[in-house]
Amino acid sequence: MNPTITAFACSPDKGEGHARDMRVRWALEEVGQPYSVELLSMKALKEPAHRARNPFGSIPTYERGPLTLFESGAIILHIAERHEGLLPIDSDKRARVIMWLFAALNTIEPPIVEREAFVLEEKDRPWFGERLPMIEDKIRNRFADLSKRLGSDDWLEGNFSVGDLMMVMVLRRLEDGAQSLLDEFPNLSRYVARGEARAAYKRAFKAQHEVYIAATTDTDR
Amino acid sequence: MNPTITAFACSPDKGEGHARDMRVRWALEEVGQPYSVELLSMKALKEPAHRARNPFGSIPTYERGPLTLFESGAIILHIAERHEGLLPIDSDKRARVIMWLFAALNTIEPPIVEREAFVLEEKDRPWFGERLPMIEDKIRNRFADLSKRLGSDDWLEGNFSVGDLMMVMVLRRLEDGAQSLLDEFPNLSRYVARGEARAAYKRAFKAQHEVYIAATTDTDR
Repeated sequence: MNPTITAFACSPDKGEGHARDMRVRWALEEVGQPYSVELLSMKALKEPAHRARNPFGSIPTYERGPLTLFESGAIILHIAERHEGLLPIDSDKRARVIMWLFAALNTIEPPIVEREAFVLEEKDRPWFGERLPMIEDKIRNRFADLSKRLGSDDWLEGNFSVGDLMMVMVLRRLEDGAQSLLDEFPNLSRYVARGEARAAYKRAFKAQHEVYIAATTDTDR
Repeated sequence: MNPTITAFACSPDKGEGHARDMRVRWALEEVGQPYSVELLSMKALKEPAHRARNPFGSIPTYERGPLTLFESGAIILHIAERHEGLLPIDSDKRARVIMWLFAALNTIEPPIVEREAFVLEEKDRPWFGERLPMIEDKIRNRFADLSKRLGSDDWLEGNFSVGDLMMVMVLRRLEDGAQSLLDEFPNLSRYVARGEARAAYKRAFKAQHEVYIAATTDTDR
């Protein structure tokens, strides 16, 4: 029984792979698990049928038989636990990899999402120009620590793992308008490029991109 | 072999249990695992010895034999996996509980931490008064969804779990200056009170509070 995930019918990221279904698609591609996709309009996200799956009314969700999950971190951890390839077998090494999954979501992503929301919602406010560099300094501080830790390694904890998958996805969000922040740390840029070069990443990117192209072609008719 | 965790030698929360070691202490108390604590000054946090444990230079960390972890979410998940009591045995139920752990950290906590940092760092800025309600609306929206989902249930997913532990800790941060936001949702206030009433919570709170009292008594000598 293949799982079904939800995604935006017309993603605000214009098919650039920043919507959080991309994380789940990539994890499923890495482990070779086929899946179905249910596309939802912005209106459908907030309706009771979807709220029953995710009380916060967002994508992605993951359904397999009686199990329904939301939260991209929980979904990809579940996929990594059910299939081989994204988590080490040794239990201590496994805990370290899961630690990086949390670090991506809780230490690295929050200031990036804060910046994204700030640019979207407050760009016409009088404080925008003075406040933007304050947020960017928070991002820069986190990146400096991460860059030092990664050094010249390919991945964070030995082989490519679910921790790298999430970290690459989180860092990559900056391609949407703040690429220069990432460019200040060449080893992090190369790390993101290594992730994007993986065959599973490319398949996942293509699949979500095609949804956007089809949606906009429909609209233009 | 008992694990060792790190905590602030003199916590900026004044022993009110908002520092993230409280989460780890509570989890260890719930499962009955004794532990040692290594206290660190603000200066020591940023030195190479601690950076080797946590590249981001923060507390808590968790060490047991050759394993070192940081990220409070990863640490309490690891504790929950090693001991009985904080995760269901059934694998689907387990995945749902882990989902709530991620939801606490990634959906509920970010706007709360954003508010906390904003109050701390920008209260003298000209935009403070206009911007604070914007952040509080983000918190309120998340709380409204969570409150509706919790309804009249005691806990989020059946019995008390690692998901509730983190959710209570995250909601409780608002006691530090924004209690009224939580008071708008009486079922969430009662949920937090249920968490705080647990014997393991009380032991953990007392332990971290005593560190603060001892530290301030030293300073006053």
